[in-house]
Amino acid sequence: MAAGATAAFGSLLSAQSLAQAESRRHSLTELRSHWRSRLRRAPAAPSVAIIGAGIAGLVAAYELRRQGLQPIVFEATGRPGGRIETLRADSWIQEQGESQYCRFQRDRDLYFNSGPARISQGHSRVLHYCRELSVELELIINENKAGYFRVAALAQRGPLRLRQFQASLRGGIAELLAKNLAAGSSQGVIPPAEIPGVLALLAQFGDLGSDLRFTGSSRGGVSEGSDPMHPATPLSPLELRELARMDFFSQYKLHLGEYLDQQASMMQPRHGMDHISQALYQQVADRVLLNCPVTALERRGTGALVRFTRNGQAAAMPFDRVIVATSPLLASRWGRDFSPGVRTALLSHQMSRPAKVAFQSERFWETRDGIYGGVSYTDEDITMLWYPSHAVGSAQGILVGAYHVGAFPGDRFGDLPAAERIRLAQEQGEKIHPGYRRMVSAGISRSWSRAAYFEGGWSMSEPSSLLQQPDGPFLFAGDYLSHMSGWMEGAIASAHGALSQL
Amino acid sequence: MAAGATAAFGSLLSAQSLAQAESRRHSLTELRSHWRSRLRRAPAAPSVAIIGAGIAGLVAAYELRRQGLQPIVFEATGRPGGRIETLRADSWIQEQGESQYCRFQRDRDLYFNSGPARISQGHSRVLHYCRELSVELELIINENKAGYFRVAALAQRGPLRLRQFQASLRGGIAELLAKNLAAGSSQGVIPPAEIPGVLALLAQFGDLGSDLRFTGSSRGGVSEGSDPMHPATPLSPLELRELARMDFFSQYKLHLGEYLDQQASMMQPRHGMDHISQALYQQVADRVLLNCPVTALERRGTGALVRFTRNGQAAAMPFDRVIVATSPLLASRWGRDFSPGVRTALLSHQMSRPAKVAFQSERFWETRDGIYGGVSYTDEDITMLWYPSHAVGSAQGILVGAYHVGAFPGDRFGDLPAAERIRLAQEQGEKIHPGYRRMVSAGISRSWSRAAYFEGGWSMSEPSSLLQQPDGPFLFAGDYLSHMSGWMEGAIASAHGALSQL
Repeated sequence: MAAGATAAFGSLLSAQSLAQAESRRHSLTELRSHWRSRLRRAPAAPSVAIIGAGIAGLVAAYELRRQGLQPIVFEATGRPGGRIETLRADSWIQEQGESQYCRFQRDRDLYFNSGPARISQGHSRVLHYCRELSVELELIINENKAGYFRVAALAQRGPLRLRQFQASLRGGIAELLAKNLAAGSSQGVIPPAEIPGVLALLAQFGDLGSDLRFTGSSRGGVSEGSDPMHPATPLSPLELRELARMDFFSQYKLHLGEYLDQQASMMQPRHGMDHISQALYQQVADRVLLNCPVTALERRGTGALVRFTRNGQAAAMPFDRVIVATSPLLASRWGRDFSPGVRTALLSHQMSRPAKVAFQSERFWETRDGIYGGVSYTDEDITMLWYPSHAVGSAQGILVGAYHVGAFPGDRFGDLPAAERIRLAQEQGEKIHPGYRRMVSAGISRSWSRAAYFEGGWSMSEPSSLLQQPDGPFLFAGDYLSHMSGWMEGAIASAHGALSQL
Repeated sequence: MAAGATAAFGSLLSAQSLAQAESRRHSLTELRSHWRSRLRRAPAAPSVAIIGAGIAGLVAAYELRRQGLQPIVFEATGRPGGRIETLRADSWIQEQGESQYCRFQRDRDLYFNSGPARISQGHSRVLHYCRELSVELELIINENKAGYFRVAALAQRGPLRLRQFQASLRGGIAELLAKNLAAGSSQGVIPPAEIPGVLALLAQFGDLGSDLRFTGSSRGGVSEGSDPMHPATPLSPLELRELARMDFFSQYKLHLGEYLDQQASMMQPRHGMDHISQALYQQVADRVLLNCPVTALERRGTGALVRFTRNGQAAAMPFDRVIVATSPLLASRWGRDFSPGVRTALLSHQMSRPAKVAFQSERFWETRDGIYGGVSYTDEDITMLWYPSHAVGSAQGILVGAYHVGAFPGDRFGDLPAAERIRLAQEQGEKIHPGYRRMVSAGISRSWSRAAYFEGGWSMSEPSSLLQQPDGPFLFAGDYLSHMSGWMEGAIASAHGALSQL
């Protein structure tokens, strides 16, 4: 299957065209036309191997296919998609010898995206492939002010909703700045004549009273059982000093909706994130070798030899180019022939160790708590409860009962056995929703650091520009190469980047 | 049809039971049991007329029906639902002799909620009836930071997204307060030892640099065509002084997602808001007289006489009680026998004059602008463009091309003929989305102040407690009686309030 056009094709990789490809901000249409014209100039089509059928590898295979090439994708597991994984009735997962069987009811609305679960509105590459491959999308709620925010230090005040924190924060900050400005203390930034305008703005921003004091706002919530026939009483606010003492704010939880990639409203494919990886896979399925783990990548002349195992037998195949679309850790293990700098760069990536837990449950969060979609937070291991945005009002739903990102020193949740993670999720969820333990069932958990061929989540290190360049016949792809690690968008961009240098 | 139990039933309306009904915050279950027990004690069921088949009238009829009563609902128009109106292919509307025919394509996703169009997650009464009557709900996006915010004064800076305003506002406020605190100017609110904690909080809140300066943030957006393979450059922020000079901020548009009833994520019935009014109507259709305008309400002993027109003929019918569930203006016209205080209170309501325009269009806001649901704002008459949250990624959508609330002095948009409103919507939408005029089609517009039997939108006045009490045989219902005027939730609460005093 390998072609011998290596030398001729290699000459196309001039320093100049690389620099061009690098410096321009390509649209996918431009990239495709760029690849097309380069391939047209090549005397023979190069043979390309792709290691890993995660979204980076699948996109690379799909795009090469569109150009008439016949890449081969080596996938170690029995499933395409990589960390894109949707669990539903009868799914099985394995982690370090521990098996879990998914006991959700058989219903297309009852699924658990154990890997990526949201698409940003700005992720044009992901959205492009969804459109091109007819993956149906729907909007989801990412931030919902009705969600709870449970912090141990404030637990005695009863359940507090996100809106109470957010309104208190805006109100407290606006009030304190207004006090300064009213006292003439504007640090030379606001000319005296403009102070009244800024005060009016602050009053709006924080919902201050006419005396520029913040004494609470309906934005933060009103007392339980308020009746529209009577004026509602705002809940008493949290004080700025109190908010500042909570170290919890140093994480981004209270500002999730402010972030560019973590908007209040995001998107998901209907019926599971794996509709994206499946749609790509359908286009290239005959080029993908499942259950086919690579064991070594070696240089052979200007090309490479891929060593792998199939049906228990060792085998090898030569290629002109190899796109390595796995985690950096795995890549480093196979690539004894990578340049030393490349190996060091691969090994230097510090990976997150995320774990999620999901339960099937009656939708008590809707009927009892008035929460429709979005997230509740806690300062315990489970970090959040994530409510489904789809099938609102139906009887049952899948609740993400833990999403521990595993990005902070001392984080150990992802290292626990699944049964223990599920038990902790029940225990900690109970503190947010009394009665939780008895309402949730069919618990299942995924820890990516315990999953074979992944051994982690996303990269927490700065991307290495060295890895964005070819290393002889080897090119790298994967979200860790981008400034959007942990996002499908970053993985796709990295695949495009690799292709632009093929 | 009228019963003669007036006197006996009247005796139930003791001052004590009224006070009880008033002071308690009822759940619907409690209210229902309260009505049941009162009716059981009545020697004969009272005869009840309901004027108006808007949601307040329909809910009142439905609840009375559940108690075994047989109310009669007089509806002046040919359609139940009142301001709950969903226009789709082949809908006709009339305003002051001007007819409009809806030319949308026949597709259940192509509809226009010309009246209420969103349900707050906290609107437990609306949600209750949706559950009870199996109205399917879905989440919608109300605030989307990807939406544009076009202000004439900043038009030369090109299209600005909501996120740029919001991030600049948070950043500018946080920076200025941090400057004050760093200079020791804390107005005695923050003890010196706690200032570092508050500074850290402000840095998070505003995304300040380590020098506590705000020089822009990816939260506000990054430059066009950013590529995940390179670090993104944040757009330069708007300055606080600049933001303060914009009078536009005195309206609530920049804080929509902060409000208790105007959350970033809300809900809608699938395929049109009128699924709510239709579901209620189905339960009481045989008690509703459509095309049956009331002409006068008169006192007769302890009861009332309802004068109305049917098939061009004047008629009259006696009742023990009349629930007047129309706009206060209309109520005041018929009720010569209302107490003078009640008439004055009805006439004192200042009503908004809202108008909306809708177009069918290719979903260019998704494909060209990366906007999925939510709202863009402008300081022109149309006030906003509201993008559909459902059927994301399909070819066509209904875009709300104007939602002029008509709540400010000098607002005249709602007084214009429909053709003129549509023309203005095309012209002003063009400034937000270049090419708009050619992309949108099938324009249709509803102005509630020009609609017969409505003559306005919602009340902008404080609710009158006088109207929350019976005036002899007359009881009042309608959102204007509540502290949630303009919301279906307020209308339902008012119907419950009237029933609790029947």
